[in-house]
Amino acid sequence: MRRKVGWLVALAVLGSGVALARAWTFQSTVNPAAARASVGQEPSEAIRAVLIAQQAAWNRGDIPAFLEGYWDSPELTFSGSDGIVRGYAGLLESYRNRYPNRAAMGELDFSGLEIRPLAPDAALVLGRWHLARSLGDTGGVFTLVFRRFPTGWRIIHDHTSAQN
Amino acid sequence: MRRKVGWLVALAVLGSGVALARAWTFQSTVNPAAARASVGQEPSEAIRAVLIAQQAAWNRGDIPAFLEGYWDSPELTFSGSDGIVRGYAGLLESYRNRYPNRAAMGELDFSGLEIRPLAPDAALVLGRWHLARSLGDTGGVFTLVFRRFPTGWRIIHDHTSAQN
Repeated sequence: MRRKVGWLVALAVLGSGVALARAWTFQSTVNPAAARASVGQEPSEAIRAVLIAQQAAWNRGDIPAFLEGYWDSPELTFSGSDGIVRGYAGLLESYRNRYPNRAAMGELDFSGLEIRPLAPDAALVLGRWHLARSLGDTGGVFTLVFRRFPTGWRIIHDHTSAQN
Repeated sequence: MRRKVGWLVALAVLGSGVALARAWTFQSTVNPAAARASVGQEPSEAIRAVLIAQQAAWNRGDIPAFLEGYWDSPELTFSGSDGIVRGYAGLLESYRNRYPNRAAMGELDFSGLEIRPLAPDAALVLGRWHLARSLGDTGGVFTLVFRRFPTGWRIIHDHTSAQN
C-alpha cells in the first residue's frame, strides 16, 4: 500500500511537471513573442520611446533616422493622401519628395497618444501630428499598427491624414 | 517487473493527458478567442463577410445596419477629417450628419481589401472606398482594426481618409 501511494505521488509530481513544460512550450509555439513579454520595457513604454525617437529625428532633419521606427520590409504599408505606399524604400522616397527641406519638414509634435495592446506582439496606436512651419502649419491624425520584432517594436502600417 | 512497467505506462498516459488538458486550459486563459479559432469561418472570410454586409447596407440607405460592422462600445474610435470620433453613438451621429440622404450617400464600393491577421482574435484590414454620386464622386483609403468577439468580428478602430 505504501508503495502504491509512493507511485501515485511520483505520478502526480511528474504529471504536473510535464504539464507545465508542455503548456509553456505550447504557448511559445503559438506566439514566440509571449516568451519575451516580460523581458525589458513594458510594450507601451517601448512604443512611446520609438515615437519620441522619431519626433527627435524629424526635428533634427534626419528622415532616415525617422524611418527607423518603421519595419524595414517590402510589406510595410503607409496609407494617406497618395493612396497606399509600399515598402521601406518607397516610404523613404515618399517622405523625401513630400518634405524636400527643413522648411517643408518644420517642427513635428506628436500628441494625444493612445496605445492599445492587441496581442503580446501587436499594438494599435492613435495620435495627432502637428507640423509648425514658416510656410504654414499642418497636422491631423494618425493610426499606427506596431509589431514586436527581435530588434524591438516597429510600425508595420501607418495611416496618416490631415484634419480639416 | 511487469507491474513496474505497467505503472510506468499508466504514468506516461496519465501525464500526457494532464499535460494536454493543462496546455489547452492555459492557452484558453491567455487568449479565449483561440479556443474558437477553428470554429466556423476562416477569419479572413468572416471579416470579408462583415464588409460585404456593410457595403450592401450602405447601398440600400441603411446607416444603422452599416454600423453593425462596428464594435458597439464607447471605446470604438474613428479617425478621419474631423479628428477622432468616439463611441458607437458618436459614429452614428457623425455618419448621419455627413450623409443626410441617399444623394449624399451615393453608391459605395470597397476594393483592394488586404486582410492581415495580427493574432487569433485581431486583424488589420486595408482597402479603398469609392462613392459614386450624382453630386460628385469621392473616395480614398481606409485602415480597419478588427477584433473577434463572441458575436463575431467587429471593427474596433477605423481610419478613413480621402485620396487626392
